Amino acid sequence: MAQQKKMVEDITSMDEDFAKWYTDIVRKAELAEYTSVKGCMVIRPYGYAIWENIQHILDTKFKETGHENVCMPMFIPESLLNKEKDHVEGFAPEVAWVTQGGNEKLEERLCVRPTSETLFCDHYANIIHSYRDLPKLYNQWVSVVRWEKTTRPFLRTREFLWQEGHTIHETAEEAQEETIRMLNVYADFCEQALAMPVVKGVKTEKERFAGAEDTYTVEALMHDGKALQSATSHYFGDGFAKAFNILYSGRDNKQHHPFQTSWGCTTRLIGAIIMTHGDDNGLVLPPAVAPIQVIIVPVAMHKEGVLDKANELKEKLSKICRVKLDDTDNSPGWKFAEYEMKGVPLRLEIGPKDIEKNQCVIVRRDSGEKIFVSLDELEAKIPELLKAVHDGMYQKALDRRAAMTFTAKDFAELKDIADNKPGFIKAMWCGDRACEDKLKEDAGITSRCIPFEQENISDVCVCCGKPAKHMLYWGKAY
Amino acid sequence: MAQQKKMVEDITSMDEDFAKWYTDIVRKAELAEYTSVKGCMVIRPYGYAIWENIQHILDTKFKETGHENVCMPMFIPESLLNKEKDHVEGFAPEVAWVTQGGNEKLEERLCVRPTSETLFCDHYANIIHSYRDLPKLYNQWVSVVRWEKTTRPFLRTREFLWQEGHTIHETAEEAQEETIRMLNVYADFCEQALAMPVVKGVKTEKERFAGAEDTYTVEALMHDGKALQSATSHYFGDGFAKAFNILYSGRDNKQHHPFQTSWGCTTRLIGAIIMTHGDDNGLVLPPAVAPIQVIIVPVAMHKEGVLDKANELKEKLSKICRVKLDDTDNSPGWKFAEYEMKGVPLRLEIGPKDIEKNQCVIVRRDSGEKIFVSLDELEAKIPELLKAVHDGMYQKALDRRAAMTFTAKDFAELKDIADNKPGFIKAMWCGDRACEDKLKEDAGITSRCIPFEQENISDVCVCCGKPAKHMLYWGKAY
Repeated sequence: MAQQKKMVEDITSMDEDFAKWYTDIVRKAELAEYTSVKGCMVIRPYGYAIWENIQHILDTKFKETGHENVCMPMFIPESLLNKEKDHVEGFAPEVAWVTQGGNEKLEERLCVRPTSETLFCDHYANIIHSYRDLPKLYNQWVSVVRWEKTTRPFLRTREFLWQEGHTIHETAEEAQEETIRMLNVYADFCEQALAMPVVKGVKTEKERFAGAEDTYTVEALMHDGKALQSATSHYFGDGFAKAFNILYSGRDNKQHHPFQTSWGCTTRLIGAIIMTHGDDNGLVLPPAVAPIQVIIVPVAMHKEGVLDKANELKEKLSKICRVKLDDTDNSPGWKFAEYEMKGVPLRLEIGPKDIEKNQCVIVRRDSGEKIFVSLDELEAKIPELLKAVHDGMYQKALDRRAAMTFTAKDFAELKDIADNKPGFIKAMWCGDRACEDKLKEDAGITSRCIPFEQENISDVCVCCGKPAKHMLYWGKAY
Repeated sequence: MAQQKKMVEDITSMDEDFAKWYTDIVRKAELAEYTSVKGCMVIRPYGYAIWENIQHILDTKFKETGHENVCMPMFIPESLLNKEKDHVEGFAPEVAWVTQGGNEKLEERLCVRPTSETLFCDHYANIIHSYRDLPKLYNQWVSVVRWEKTTRPFLRTREFLWQEGHTIHETAEEAQEETIRMLNVYADFCEQALAMPVVKGVKTEKERFAGAEDTYTVEALMHDGKALQSATSHYFGDGFAKAFNILYSGRDNKQHHPFQTSWGCTTRLIGAIIMTHGDDNGLVLPPAVAPIQVIIVPVAMHKEGVLDKANELKEKLSKICRVKLDDTDNSPGWKFAEYEMKGVPLRLEIGPKDIEKNQCVIVRRDSGEKIFVSLDELEAKIPELLKAVHDGMYQKALDRRAAMTFTAKDFAELKDIADNKPGFIKAMWCGDRACEDKLKEDAGITSRCIPFEQENISDVCVCCGKPAKHMLYWGKAY
């Protein structure tokens, strides 16, 4: 067990240094690695396999809701980026510029897309002529670049992977419905696939996406009490359509501007998984996205029949889940620690005594619970146990969020919570930008969202004492 | 039928102007569209769906052969690109350079990856220490950028989508086996999924990938007699490992350089599909990658029971193939032309008279053949017919290639063929670069490959008359 001990010691404990704990998991579970390219990472096979599972589930959902995938160029000519005023103001300061192609200096510089609204609009202006061409429900899975100063794997990197949906509709109502529909797709995905509870709501004007009329968000709470914006969905009205001169002839034979949305989520979801579910032994993966759902560890592997039985179980289980058999000559103890670190939801141990009793031992990663399962019942039991792990993870995260969500009625109370209790703060707001700015400056918190589920905590703004308009979630954020 | 006629007239005929015929199909079948970004295209939903099918088949095959997906950064610092001499010489003249990030001028410029050998090597140097870490069998699905001067959708664009496999091995033999294994994966894919016969062989030194010891290729022949390099697989020896100082401690406890390969195919395969199978009515898609395999066109749709029956057939068929029902109010004639243009392998027509007879009409896109099928046998018949379409397409392409492959014994004969008969030319070669250069200059042809299947056409080089070493395929190429 010496090796096991050593390996576990390798992870900094969460309480000691949360940031280091995070980086330790990223590197030791082999999710990602640093590169010679500043601010960029390599996503390693184990990390990429999680992303592929995320992609598969979301892509299926996007297609079920009528969306089609496309692929736009990665470059945006400066003049195209400049077309929508708010949008360019938001993004121009943080883009990478290509100024030379081969041996020629470019006449017009190109930015590497930080997001692709301008490219989609340019295309829509080409292909949309009549109401019969609407809606277009497009999505793409690509990477984008934003020139961040401080970076952390998955959470904030100069290049990151994401999907960006871009839709265009005949009416404002349709576009608004789409915006909410996709927010719900994200919320359901976070809860049902990632076992991660989220707060659904709308961003304040200050926190809106550049160019949007409304930005909706799903906000999750991490282990350290910081909030993480997990996906966003934007309603654009006809602002982009006007800027890009997108027109269609309507049912009334007149020319109209259509209405647009965009929505996205990124590889930062992998950071969210780590910081929602991880513990001092490493990663804890939600079964729906775990590259390996069941790891089989043979015990006393050299004894006759053990490996055969382990292989037999692997064959059986491979029909119902993602299973791996580790038959390397590392010790069982080393393997236990290794797959705990990698967050595999279920460990199946099988040794000579188990075989005698026609059973195996299953250990849940989320709770450490040990369960003896008859080999005859294994195929029925595994899906049940995977569901139990998911439910257990979700409930634990929900309980922690409840314990870390506070309410504040006045500024003193809010300031005390912000200084001393990591987590969400629910408080009333008058709707003025000035109060939002003041809370950021004086209490170090930002508005996360105006949640759909409103509560009346008091009648007045937590900051200025004037009549309140909304209840907001506040917090420190990644 | 006026609409149908008009639509078909919209495609330039192949004989009249092959390049225009190609572009017409790309745009009218809605595979891709031009953008405001010079040299780059939008891949539209129908084109992207073909690419997704290609990806799915190849990715499954890559995983079956033990490969794992990763994701490297899109940028390469100039100093990293410069590490391997031949490689940088080959690629530096055609890369796009990022020189500014946000508001700061970069201290070191970054190129947008034209290919990722240097990034993989940089990573391998970090993670490989012992023979126990070998092999690494990695792949990534990304886009790359090469600053081409003249571009054509799918065939040559400044940005294109591809996959790039990068593997690293303990021994030269293992790496060489991998190179050939992946070439065979590509060849099988071209023939079994794309119905496109290919010649397998090795490139001459002149045509090798920059930095490779050997480049293997699969070469296909297009409708116009030009060759298209459809995928390549490279053996690097330990050249990159030495340049990047990748070392592992071997079974003998000494330090060794490992051996590497890379292999790739691109969205140009979609161009290959168009130019191998297309005709004057539009695209003809191989069933394995067709987004829609069966299009159901109801005839006399307003008559009672027709739409119900069409929907019923769609439900049934959706379990065994990719099927679509077009119940829009366009005329059946318009629909026939539309889905011919889009290359859908099978059209299923169902009208009141068919329903009376408990049958439907199926029309093959590849041959135009009309087949009456009993509705009771439909589910058994569709997979058979899809296979027949595939086989028919493959045979037609194979026959055309045979008819367009010529042999030349001496220069006069070769020059006559090169000037007058589009296609492959098989001819002997002494192995000297000078002869290769001369054939390019004087006959306008390049060496495609030294095929694995050698023939003895004569004993002497077609160019200089000295003793021949190999039989080569020559041709004009995309």
